[in-house]
Amino acid sequence: MKGLIPMGDLEQLASRSREAAARLAVLTTEEKDRALLRMADGLEENSREILEHNRGDIEAAREQGMTTALMDRLTLSEPRIAEMARGLREVAALRDPVGEVEDGWRLPNGLQVEKVRVPLGVIGIIYEARPNVTVDAAGLCIKSGNAVILRGSSSAVNSNKVLASTISEAAVEAGLPGGSIQLVQETDRETARRLMRLHGLIDVLIPRGGEGLIRTVVENSTVPVIETGVGNCHLYVDESADIGMAVEIAVNAKTQRPGVCNACETMLVHRAIAGEFLPPAFAELRERGVTVRGCRGTREILSEAEEATEDDWSEEYLDLILAVRLVGSVEEAISHINRYGSHHSETIVSNDYANCQEFVTGVDSAAVYVNASTRFTDGNQFGLGAEIGISTQKLHARGPMSLRELTTTKFIIRGTGQIRP
Amino acid sequence: MKGLIPMGDLEQLASRSREAAARLAVLTTEEKDRALLRMADGLEENSREILEHNRGDIEAAREQGMTTALMDRLTLSEPRIAEMARGLREVAALRDPVGEVEDGWRLPNGLQVEKVRVPLGVIGIIYEARPNVTVDAAGLCIKSGNAVILRGSSSAVNSNKVLASTISEAAVEAGLPGGSIQLVQETDRETARRLMRLHGLIDVLIPRGGEGLIRTVVENSTVPVIETGVGNCHLYVDESADIGMAVEIAVNAKTQRPGVCNACETMLVHRAIAGEFLPPAFAELRERGVTVRGCRGTREILSEAEEATEDDWSEEYLDLILAVRLVGSVEEAISHINRYGSHHSETIVSNDYANCQEFVTGVDSAAVYVNASTRFTDGNQFGLGAEIGISTQKLHARGPMSLRELTTTKFIIRGTGQIRP
Repeated sequence: MKGLIPMGDLEQLASRSREAAARLAVLTTEEKDRALLRMADGLEENSREILEHNRGDIEAAREQGMTTALMDRLTLSEPRIAEMARGLREVAALRDPVGEVEDGWRLPNGLQVEKVRVPLGVIGIIYEARPNVTVDAAGLCIKSGNAVILRGSSSAVNSNKVLASTISEAAVEAGLPGGSIQLVQETDRETARRLMRLHGLIDVLIPRGGEGLIRTVVENSTVPVIETGVGNCHLYVDESADIGMAVEIAVNAKTQRPGVCNACETMLVHRAIAGEFLPPAFAELRERGVTVRGCRGTREILSEAEEATEDDWSEEYLDLILAVRLVGSVEEAISHINRYGSHHSETIVSNDYANCQEFVTGVDSAAVYVNASTRFTDGNQFGLGAEIGISTQKLHARGPMSLRELTTTKFIIRGTGQIRP
Repeated sequence: MKGLIPMGDLEQLASRSREAAARLAVLTTEEKDRALLRMADGLEENSREILEHNRGDIEAAREQGMTTALMDRLTLSEPRIAEMARGLREVAALRDPVGEVEDGWRLPNGLQVEKVRVPLGVIGIIYEARPNVTVDAAGLCIKSGNAVILRGSSSAVNSNKVLASTISEAAVEAGLPGGSIQLVQETDRETARRLMRLHGLIDVLIPRGGEGLIRTVVENSTVPVIETGVGNCHLYVDESADIGMAVEIAVNAKTQRPGVCNACETMLVHRAIAGEFLPPAFAELRERGVTVRGCRGTREILSEAEEATEDDWSEEYLDLILAVRLVGSVEEAISHINRYGSHHSETIVSNDYANCQEFVTGVDSAAVYVNASTRFTDGNQFGLGAEIGISTQKLHARGPMSLRELTTTKFIIRGTGQIRP
């Protein structure tokens, strides 16, 4: 399974994707939706085989001593398969962005200019552990008229193979071209690196996983990349905050689901309110198992807090740990966030109009909140229907990426013989 | 001038840009416009010194035997300085994209979501020969609230230095932060490569120049890149074309300005119309000095045509040379264009509704025309006001890039204590 494939094979696979993309781009929404529904049915019909292959991955993972949390992410079940199928049916019901006229005008010489949404072409997804990404990502790519090349991790290779072949066969049955959904079966690093160099064959690469994966892709890819997911998110409790609201938001942002990218990792607290706010906040957090790592000022108020080091300000714990630092002003909070943060999601709890305005203007992140939990940064929560990831870069897409972010535009200009004087 | 600078210095320069960017992002349009007008005045006031430094570059170029065409691009004059100043004043008069609310809605839980346009941050421009890019690019970056790092070619280094210091000093006089406009004075390749690796300090790199430069940036950059400019543009003359219109468009697209990216390089002609169309078209083209390189069928009709090789279909001549190939259908034309083209601008001359529709849908390029010259793909021609380049990639921006394409968006979410259930 890990054997090296000759260079030609990966390029051939990508060329097949390109051919499929040209055909997918001109399909009607009805044709794409029919395929998505067939893919959903195919998953349910094939559930026994899927679970069998998944067991292979689970056994191998157990032998290798994978943690329970990761094992849980890897494990499929009848309800989880039904969930993937439901996801595909939901995507089928979403509005198709392809063909939307974004803008249009007439030039003085009579040329009629239109800016129209079209698919990106071939999208590469490099992802870790969770096999459901195979299905979720493919569904979004197909709906938006793109061919997709999937490259999952070795720990889920059997699950990914059976899922990809199931939905790919269903898609072909429903009339989609053969190369629409393809899985790169080799899970070695060299193959991944070669995939990243297929500039001209792949239009965009979206890595979904931890910081290490994303850094590798950014370092090595000649294909344009959309960085996703790393979230060192901040809560700033302003001098003017409502203490009760601040406690509730701190608890929600930290503990409602600590392992996800929009969970809060560092809390900045205005010195003037720290004495009043920190003890009740800490009581609630401790009750939910949260450990605090604080600056000197924090530890003077919370003697139970561990000592925070410089590294803590940059850490994405994804765990029940919260870094806490006292600041003297909203400006100090903003510059801490812009320096140490990952430009994902940050929130201010405040009742001061000027401070709120300064915070939302000055913080350089994809999502900036006033008086709300950071946990809302999510395609579904934002009402965008579905999400392929949360972009933390500034090019092309920023924040939750939905179907529209999987498209680009094309200018169509209609004339009657115009030439440039 | 070409001495190696220690790694720290380039990072320090980029850090200064980042600090400037944070301040530029919150300036009002009035403050930015005031700086642009001051920069324009500064250029005119400093014209004697600018021309002096420019003469240094010209003499060095002459000694190195630079071609007349390149010498012309390098040469500044009072009118050319006045033109650069006028350009800055025109940019000052354009609408500021920063602060535009792209979209907004209220979630069921009462959260108010807004998607607001904000500057990208720090933009790096790597460019060749023409010193006016120094001023034009800086003007567009400042207007859109970005700090800019300029890295020009060694042949224009004296001109670029004096232009950059003139406009940078004027910008500071008008209240802009010191690092808003910076020139990397080292023009060696190693410095350029290090610039391309400043991921996290530079938000986007825009190479402006030939194919070699663009490829180097794509291959080496960890900073997100917007590819611009390479244009292997096509004209397809359909069976149903109006011969007179087709001749006029062919002549315009090829000869109106052959050295630019939106000039036509290959003409595809339907076999059924070739005998009637090619002789009059060739007569007009020859009169303007155009050489034709044709396929076998073309040469049977035009005995004067040279023989085209496979390489000709991919060539961007930027010269009075036109490749000509006969095709049997619009489908064949589309697949030739998608295979050999650079996804820039293509046009069909036709009076057949179905063929026109198929062409605009099937051709995978930034701008697709019906019955018009490809020469209109340009920010000014499109009425966008000004242009930093023409993107031939699909991510972020496609086609002429104007002020709006130098911005990104940020979600601002205002609440009253919402937490995620």
